[in-house]
Amino acid sequence: MVIVLKDNTPSQKVNELISSLEKKNVTANLVKGVHSTIIGLIGDTVHIDTEAILANDCVEKVQRVQEPYKNANRKFHPDDTVLDICGRKLGGNKLQVIAGPCSVESERQLLETAIACKKAGATMLRGGAFKPRTSPYSFQGLRKEGIELLLKAKKETGLPIVTEIMSLAHLYMFSDVDVIQVGARNMQNFELLKALGRCDKPILLKRGLSSTLEELLMSAEYIMSEGNTKVMLCERGIRTFEPMTRNTLDVSAVPLLKHKSHLPVVVDPSHATGIVKLVEPMSLAAVAAGCDALEIEVHCDPENALSDGSQQLTPDAFSKVMNKIKALAGFVGRPVDDGE
Amino acid sequence: MVIVLKDNTPSQKVNELISSLEKKNVTANLVKGVHSTIIGLIGDTVHIDTEAILANDCVEKVQRVQEPYKNANRKFHPDDTVLDICGRKLGGNKLQVIAGPCSVESERQLLETAIACKKAGATMLRGGAFKPRTSPYSFQGLRKEGIELLLKAKKETGLPIVTEIMSLAHLYMFSDVDVIQVGARNMQNFELLKALGRCDKPILLKRGLSSTLEELLMSAEYIMSEGNTKVMLCERGIRTFEPMTRNTLDVSAVPLLKHKSHLPVVVDPSHATGIVKLVEPMSLAAVAAGCDALEIEVHCDPENALSDGSQQLTPDAFSKVMNKIKALAGFVGRPVDDGE
Amino acid sequence: MVIVLKDNTPSQKVNELISSLEKKNVTANLVKGVHSTIIGLIGDTVHIDTEAILANDCVEKVQRVQEPYKNANRKFHPDDTVLDICGRKLGGNKLQVIAGPCSVESERQLLETAIACKKAGATMLRGGAFKPRTSPYSFQGLRKEGIELLLKAKKETGLPIVTEIMSLAHLYMFSDVDVIQVGARNMQNFELLKALGRCDKPILLKRGLSSTLEELLMSAEYIMSEGNTKVMLCERGIRTFEPMTRNTLDVSAVPLLKHKSHLPVVVDPSHATGIVKLVEPMSLAAVAAGCDALEIEVHCDPENALSDGSQQLTPDAFSKVMNKIKALAGFVGRPVDDGE
Amino acid sequence: MVIVLKDNTPSQKVNELISSLEKKNVTANLVKGVHSTIIGLIGDTVHIDTEAILANDCVEKVQRVQEPYKNANRKFHPDDTVLDICGRKLGGNKLQVIAGPCSVESERQLLETAIACKKAGATMLRGGAFKPRTSPYSFQGLRKEGIELLLKAKKETGLPIVTEIMSLAHLYMFSDVDVIQVGARNMQNFELLKALGRCDKPILLKRGLSSTLEELLMSAEYIMSEGNTKVMLCERGIRTFEPMTRNTLDVSAVPLLKHKSHLPVVVDPSHATGIVKLVEPMSLAAVAAGCDALEIEVHCDPENALSDGSQQLTPDAFSKVMNKIKALAGFVGRPVDDGE
Repeated sequence: MVIVLKDNTPSQKVNELISSLEKKNVTANLVKGVHSTIIGLIGDTVHIDTEAILANDCVEKVQRVQEPYKNANRKFHPDDTVLDICGRKLGGNKLQVIAGPCSVESERQLLETAIACKKAGATMLRGGAFKPRTSPYSFQGLRKEGIELLLKAKKETGLPIVTEIMSLAHLYMFSDVDVIQVGARNMQNFELLKALGRCDKPILLKRGLSSTLEELLMSAEYIMSEGNTKVMLCERGIRTFEPMTRNTLDVSAVPLLKHKSHLPVVVDPSHATGIVKLVEPMSLAAVAAGCDALEIEVHCDPENALSDGSQQLTPDAFSKVMNKIKALAGFVGRPVDDGE
Repeated sequence: MVIVLKDNTPSQKVNELISSLEKKNVTANLVKGVHSTIIGLIGDTVHIDTEAILANDCVEKVQRVQEPYKNANRKFHPDDTVLDICGRKLGGNKLQVIAGPCSVESERQLLETAIACKKAGATMLRGGAFKPRTSPYSFQGLRKEGIELLLKAKKETGLPIVTEIMSLAHLYMFSDVDVIQVGARNMQNFELLKALGRCDKPILLKRGLSSTLEELLMSAEYIMSEGNTKVMLCERGIRTFEPMTRNTLDVSAVPLLKHKSHLPVVVDPSHATGIVKLVEPMSLAAVAAGCDALEIEVHCDPENALSDGSQQLTPDAFSKVMNKIKALAGFVGRPVDDGE
Repeated sequence: MVIVLKDNTPSQKVNELISSLEKKNVTANLVKGVHSTIIGLIGDTVHIDTEAILANDCVEKVQRVQEPYKNANRKFHPDDTVLDICGRKLGGNKLQVIAGPCSVESERQLLETAIACKKAGATMLRGGAFKPRTSPYSFQGLRKEGIELLLKAKKETGLPIVTEIMSLAHLYMFSDVDVIQVGARNMQNFELLKALGRCDKPILLKRGLSSTLEELLMSAEYIMSEGNTKVMLCERGIRTFEPMTRNTLDVSAVPLLKHKSHLPVVVDPSHATGIVKLVEPMSLAAVAAGCDALEIEVHCDPENALSDGSQQLTPDAFSKVMNKIKALAGFVGRPVDDGE
Repeated sequence: MVIVLKDNTPSQKVNELISSLEKKNVTANLVKGVHSTIIGLIGDTVHIDTEAILANDCVEKVQRVQEPYKNANRKFHPDDTVLDICGRKLGGNKLQVIAGPCSVESERQLLETAIACKKAGATMLRGGAFKPRTSPYSFQGLRKEGIELLLKAKKETGLPIVTEIMSLAHLYMFSDVDVIQVGARNMQNFELLKALGRCDKPILLKRGLSSTLEELLMSAEYIMSEGNTKVMLCERGIRTFEPMTRNTLDVSAVPLLKHKSHLPVVVDPSHATGIVKLVEPMSLAAVAAGCDALEIEVHCDPENALSDGSQQLTPDAFSKVMNKIKALAGFVGRPVDDGE
């Protein structure tokens, strides 16, 4: 950690600051210059609060040098984390494709979609039972019933299921769910993250709408610091000034997250773009950039979907996209998992 | 609502769309041009999902004309909402100043700060018992004990108390709190909003880090649609590319929110800037722009604060800022409430 | 174009507005509803100024339905534009790779880099003679001498040259340059764009730092409306809140621009990320998403480069990246141009 | 300047880096820790290129400690710069109000508006002769004729004139103009800035659409480093995600710029918001925050304006806004200049 002092700070003030810092189990090195004085803090600074130092009258700037996360940091865990989800390996040498409807709407809709997804080559099933909608007047999801239908679809197809949690008050309903998803709007719902850190289930953590990658990693750290290390990170598009797409898929997040962390990286091209015809090119871009899994929305009848209709593929369209994904994934040496 | 159709949509498809729309209790007017065809939807469109219409193969764009919120909309409630908080009127012709520490840290710290705030002219007391921190290794708040200390400080000073909730699982602890604050990171924690909509307490709802004003109003709508209409909106800075300040205070949010909604508007210059020396100019700017209340962080010893030290004023500094605020508020005809 | 009127506009005002609009060679259709009145404008609205309409007292909103660009619009020019640059086809079924140093620094540096680029398979040579630097104290480029060195390197290697213009006062020096580049900071230097529209040379137009794709297309329109239709569009990263990369490469710009326009699309992964190790994954992502060309920075000695050292590949590293690009480009059916 | 080295950098590499740095007239101090090694660079680092250092294989991060600007820096010029514009002092203890139409459209339009502005209390006249428009099909300004009309209006009213330059090729036409404005889109047109640095005229430099304040100050530095120190900085709104306003006025830029620099600060509430009814509250907020001047658009007939009609005040509305501004400016001790 680097602390830049204000010009003309009296040396007594500097010494006081240094001795207060050294009480926190770090070593402070003073670098004195003509125009500026710098203190270099050496040791384990993860627990030191930069804001508290900044409150000191003689401090101009505080800059962290080391990453503030440990459990999620590749430096301390060089090997890739590989999650086992009902026998499917996520983060290993196979690509996983999570597909399914935005919302679970009915038994018929879910089963028809799930069967089509499986046939096209999807390796897991997604579906929203609890739906975070901007408007209280929009469809809010089937909730408990939605989860029951997902479990039925799992029984029918054998696909593991991924579904979103919106409140820790609902956690008891997720005991048979295979992967619990945390949506972008809850990425910094810290009480929820802590509760999930005390479960023994894989968590798919989505990047917030305008979060940095470090903030995403700090949210993963919240879960991991409570004991649950089964976390996957999901890039799902960030808010930018471009109005043609709902969000802008930050493809560079894939190699950056793989570099900074050992956790697997999932890409969601459906939410990232909000446009059906961009799902194929953005899925291919994500695979070329090295993602571990894709999450794609598919609906048996998008025109009558109760949410996000414009970004859900028909089963036919999904099947065509899957053929392209399979070919490219094979070419880059990460074939789509075929369950063998 | 305006629906723009794709070129060359066959008229049969257009007719199908129109009849499916008219089932939703609206009237569809067709405007046919050389290059484009438009459907104008007339009636109550708040319950219509734009995404669902967009999923239709022949639709190019859907644009809402009416605001998607009703309870928060000034059009339907022309008079200003005035909240009564232990006898203090927020939203009326007096300015309220909510002051206090970022976090409640100890009885001594809270009482010393609270007494100083009152002396300087603050009209309500703030203090965080539950703290949303980016890092799990930072101070997380005194939680239940923090609320108890706030109630003690209220007894001591007579100031109504404002404190933040982070999870609906904690709601039972807030029964004696005067104003429940929802932080920026929870602005779209919809399950929490719904639960707060079923309380009978004033809610101070903060704008999300990169939320639009319409999204803020939709979150207010979540609370109000469940029955609780005691909502105040808080501008606390939005994320921009400017690194000199923590966030950028959107002062224009004040007149815009007052224009679009009847709800009172609070401005938090402390979080918006993160810089002590900007609290005064930005408070004055907010008052000049017409806000109903300010929320300012004050700490009896900022250099040793457990959170956000760099943005908290000392009691002395706060007292000087208050003198300026009082003078300007008086000049613009919205004097600071003196409890008379 | 859709014009939404304010509630309770008297019909006389509406009629006046309609007759003033119809003077502009468009037809106005009135759609009257309970809560809102809409005018649908049909005809060629490219020349109509939305701001002027908005100034009208009775107008609440104006929304464009048709794109405001014509020459750059695929609707009116369905076939892909293929540019011929010294015999190399950009926009056709081969991928072009433009490589070379950020700045031209010396004859030795440029020739050594150019020869290495050619050997690795680059198909055009880039190099900055005029350098837009944030600080007046940074290296500003060799200017005229830089262009002369580029022409020498062209003679030596046979590679067509691409270099940036910063002012129309320098245009006379660019007569032997093969492609004139307009940098992100000049994307809305409209006087420069008009001057380039009167040349007969291919223009590589970079997207502004926080420009929308429509603004990029409008800047292309500025060039094309003056007669020069040889324009290629370049995605080079946009400003976002992510600090790990210099900018965020908007890969989705590739399929969107190809969909909206017939102009070729170039991607610059070097400026987009500012990080050497991201050039490979982002180049592959761009190829997978369908770009027509890549622009990559290469320097024979990046540690001693006079500008942007941290994002330039060594010749060795470039050669490895090129092998991956060649393989993927071949796989997706757009092989790198080998000059045959 | 602080240089953070990668873990495990061999000491020979460190020594090589230090000796190469010390050739640049700075002193390098090594701070060695367990997990990281830091070099603190002491001396005049304005001329050192952070990118070049970053290109070094063993460097992880480079962070500037001192501001990279000197001429614009208050540290080296503690006293406020006060510009004299035909006898009017901008930056001193009077507030200046620059008013006038977005575009000069005709003699009648300009004179009628200018006379009304003067009558209401404006102290300078603005008007665009060269207009940067997003579309090549929009009105581009009267150009040379526009400047002649402005000079006529100056003669008529006695108000100094402010008008925008778009290309250095037009500079010869500006010899009688009192203040040359550089628009947001040209803030980083470095060749233009250098040319203006060689004039002897006050320059009103507008902040770019998504520029940081440091970038604005670096652009001022471009002008000043060529000799012209008569620069004023203008906050005119930045691009954010809020769609209700055209841009978001960053009021905190006022105290920050005044703190970092000695140059006067102008605020343009018209472009910042694009909405007539926000001009009053945002003008008052800017005055409360300490700006030196306001720039406000006024048009004798906004509904028929050739550009930006929706943000221009009528003379009547302007007169009302001026009364509020005069009262507040007087109250805060910076009365509007009355020419006495």
